[in-house]
Amino acid sequence: MAKDSYLVGLIGSGIGPSLTPALHEREADRQGLRYLYRLIDIDTLGVPPEAVGDLLRAARDLGFDGLNITHPCKQLVIEHLDALSPQAEALGAVNTVVFDDDGRATGHNTDVTGFAASFARGLPDVPLERVVQLGAGGAGAAVAHAMLTLGAGRVTVVDAVPERAADLAASLGRHFGEGRASSATPDRLAELLGTADGIVHATPTGMAAHPGLPLPAGLLHPGLWVAEVVYRPLETELLRAARALGCAVLDGGGMAVFQAVDAFRLFTGREPDSARMLADIADLAGAVAAGT
Amino acid sequence: MAKDSYLVGLIGSGIGPSLTPALHEREADRQGLRYLYRLIDIDTLGVPPEAVGDLLRAARDLGFDGLNITHPCKQLVIEHLDALSPQAEALGAVNTVVFDDDGRATGHNTDVTGFAASFARGLPDVPLERVVQLGAGGAGAAVAHAMLTLGAGRVTVVDAVPERAADLAASLGRHFGEGRASSATPDRLAELLGTADGIVHATPTGMAAHPGLPLPAGLLHPGLWVAEVVYRPLETELLRAARALGCAVLDGGGMAVFQAVDAFRLFTGREPDSARMLADIADLAGAVAAGT
Repeated sequence: MAKDSYLVGLIGSGIGPSLTPALHEREADRQGLRYLYRLIDIDTLGVPPEAVGDLLRAARDLGFDGLNITHPCKQLVIEHLDALSPQAEALGAVNTVVFDDDGRATGHNTDVTGFAASFARGLPDVPLERVVQLGAGGAGAAVAHAMLTLGAGRVTVVDAVPERAADLAASLGRHFGEGRASSATPDRLAELLGTADGIVHATPTGMAAHPGLPLPAGLLHPGLWVAEVVYRPLETELLRAARALGCAVLDGGGMAVFQAVDAFRLFTGREPDSARMLADIADLAGAVAAGT
Repeated sequence: MAKDSYLVGLIGSGIGPSLTPALHEREADRQGLRYLYRLIDIDTLGVPPEAVGDLLRAARDLGFDGLNITHPCKQLVIEHLDALSPQAEALGAVNTVVFDDDGRATGHNTDVTGFAASFARGLPDVPLERVVQLGAGGAGAAVAHAMLTLGAGRVTVVDAVPERAADLAASLGRHFGEGRASSATPDRLAELLGTADGIVHATPTGMAAHPGLPLPAGLLHPGLWVAEVVYRPLETELLRAARALGCAVLDGGGMAVFQAVDAFRLFTGREPDSARMLADIADLAGAVAAGT
């Protein structure tokens, strides 16, 4: 008999507003699965990020089929796992854990595969020779891995903290080959964007709590494509400005959906309908924006 | 917004064949609730019964709304709870734990309320002056409490282990008044049943793994009613023999259903449809009997 009942959850900090539970449960409902997605917020529990190991073992013992993992536990969880997918191992970060029938825990990273799927779908024919990426945090590391996996010629990582950009570029160079990644400080953006094919934006600027543009508006020009990781709101100031110039753009909803698509497939072994889930995210993010 | 998503489970030993998950989930489906019932078997986990405290706290932290508790953890769980219902306190055993929004855990005993509800429905007008009960284990304690709560004049507890019967009778006497409970050894059954109104059967005899009759067939007579706690199969040898004599009988399905009815109400605050759940248990127990 095929398994048709799934219990999953998300471990992280400040995750109350996450749309991921609704994305998973709506798709499961359409597939006729009994599916429950629980939020396990370390802030609410009053435990430190290092508690992720205990929470992981407890979830396995209590019958969870898998977990999503987010900030600040994506690295800390690794020592508690039995195996890693190639993407998770290369990135050194896990956002999805699947328990098999014997209780073995395998870590995956669907931020990488999710961004790659969203980009390939949303900007399929854009040039990738020179990519400038803003932001070298956890999301930045995932999307830089995705861009280089997609065949980007060279990714230049720009971050307000130069060491962080340099560290990420060095790590990317080790995995994808020296010369395919470098770092730069924000004062070089004008020069870099003058010859770039596109921008990947991976900082929090543009989220509801961090409004604004992540770079001077004057540096945008019609020869750039612009890909965004922020998805609340879907239409950030950056995307609005880029769209006004005629740039090809990709909003962050696709990454949010495709990381969930890939996690759903890993949890259930069933193929989700990504088109329906893209419609869901527009609906859910719109409801959030409207405060409902 | 009303809560419409529930995660519950059962902690115990050897619980794989339990029909309770299906009873809860079928009723929840009819009510349009997202409802998942997980089995947490200490044998499968390889942990001792004393682990129930850790499992309880883990379940609370991971977003469970409540738990059923069964053998051998019904007493052990009590020290880990914040409050007890009157039935659970009187019996010293908990089979249902509800977590409130602050994580406080309250213990209930729906074996007592469930048997009482089943008896009141199935044998509403039988005389209760003299009741003989076979079995003084955990189920026996619960149904004896239920019978005395229903107004039984005197319950005589018979068990193959005389000390166990005496201990239960003494405890019942303290709660319900001296003279309302006594104990006896099996050799006195002929004498006791000659003047009894009815028999409550609360030993494992008659289950698929323990076939047979719990007393010599010749001791049954048409002046007795017979109430059974065994529900797999629903029609035990005892009930078949009693029915053949023309006795009023009550099968164990009602207790199984009404403990689930009461637990469902405690978990969700919603009123389950007990008639539909009684139909479910007949269906489910029939499927088990047929090996499907």
